[in-house]
Amino acid sequence: MTAPIVILVEPQLAENIGMTARAMANFGLSELRLVAPKNGWPKKGVREAASGATHVLDGAKVYATLPEAIADLHAVFATTARERGQMKRVFAPEPAMAEVAGRIGGGERIGLMFGRERVGLTNDEVSLADAIVTFPVTEEFPSLNLAQAVLLMGYEWRRAAGLATLRFSGEMLSPPATREAMLSLFASLEATLERAGFYPPEKREIIARNMRDMLHRMSLTEQDVRTFRGALRALRPRGETD
Amino acid sequence: MTAPIVILVEPQLAENIGMTARAMANFGLSELRLVAPKNGWPKKGVREAASGATHVLDGAKVYATLPEAIADLHAVFATTARERGQMKRVFAPEPAMAEVAGRIGGGERIGLMFGRERVGLTNDEVSLADAIVTFPVTEEFPSLNLAQAVLLMGYEWRRAAGLATLRFSGEMLSPPATREAMLSLFASLEATLERAGFYPPEKREIIARNMRDMLHRMSLTEQDVRTFRGALRALRPRGETD
Repeated sequence: MTAPIVILVEPQLAENIGMTARAMANFGLSELRLVAPKNGWPKKGVREAASGATHVLDGAKVYATLPEAIADLHAVFATTARERGQMKRVFAPEPAMAEVAGRIGGGERIGLMFGRERVGLTNDEVSLADAIVTFPVTEEFPSLNLAQAVLLMGYEWRRAAGLATLRFSGEMLSPPATREAMLSLFASLEATLERAGFYPPEKREIIARNMRDMLHRMSLTEQDVRTFRGALRALRPRGETD
Repeated sequence: MTAPIVILVEPQLAENIGMTARAMANFGLSELRLVAPKNGWPKKGVREAASGATHVLDGAKVYATLPEAIADLHAVFATTARERGQMKRVFAPEPAMAEVAGRIGGGERIGLMFGRERVGLTNDEVSLADAIVTFPVTEEFPSLNLAQAVLLMGYEWRRAAGLATLRFSGEMLSPPATREAMLSLFASLEATLERAGFYPPEKREIIARNMRDMLHRMSLTEQDVRTFRGALRALRPRGETD
């Protein structure tokens, strides 16, 4: 699935553009457009900040004006931290990306617009967008870094597009222990502790049940049971068996 | 609701620690712990990188070892990009934070552990965690910046805790137009276009219906209808009325 296009309007710092490229690459976005980057392009230090996401930087296109940068798109979402008094739909990142993924699935090209580091987008620039996206930040500290804003949008894009699989899972490396193995472990543990004089006679049953609960909560695998029984054997006096 | 505690293990770059503090402040996290920061603490440039989130830096606690940094916590989630061959639960950020929010709601103190910039956490460090969190990044470019990883966790924490309200909404600044106002606008528009000779006689009805559809799709407000009618009046030859 084609990903949305990231449009940075008059970005200033090489660090932020590089980190934007890196964040895009993390979540599978690749098309970057720069509108009138301050102090020219390319910028010194931008490749270092991209930490290897140089394919995004190498493919970045520079435009003199925002209208040129969005002309071939079918919809543009503007990110902003401030209310603009413009009667547009306002989205959190997740529902915004649900709509973006649907429209991209229908063959549209969608742009995500991000403003200048210090002052964001002008009201005129926001007026060229179809809708607004804002972030659920705190009232006390709402200022998101530019590349951080891009990252959150990329993350939600990947989730909305159904591409957010994890690179590994918590699959058990050994199958869960059978109940037979667990029952045998309980018997071995309890016999060993009995012989070691661990149980006060009147409390033997309740302590044994509590320890079975603890062992159940561990969701032991076959390998875990083997390890556990090996440790028990090592702790027993010489010659004593299960 | 108390937020989770962010633990950075041997962080190196002032830029990353400052950006971590900023990302934490964006989403309402405030407790930062640093385990053996490389080249000492505080670091030059860290306050600038925090862009004002100095309350997080000022409150940061430094620990010599990871066991000391997590001793008072009830659970620790370790973030890692690599599979560790450890039989732990592996979470994406969203379900991890659902569990974290539930446990914090039950009075537990929860830590989120992040590794070194280049090499992450060691297997021994991961073995001190209750569970693993990994990010749904691309196979081709999985390396998330440290502060970016903290940001995603903070964002999902805020959502899971039910605190992710937007700072403004897309409420209409003027009430939706009544259907009476819309019908009157259609009549005015069609009469004006009729007099201007816009309609081929045999297509008048279908074109008028298409334009009504366009106007419906705009979801006009009362103010929009007034603006529209004012523009129509301005376009009519002098002396002509609705």
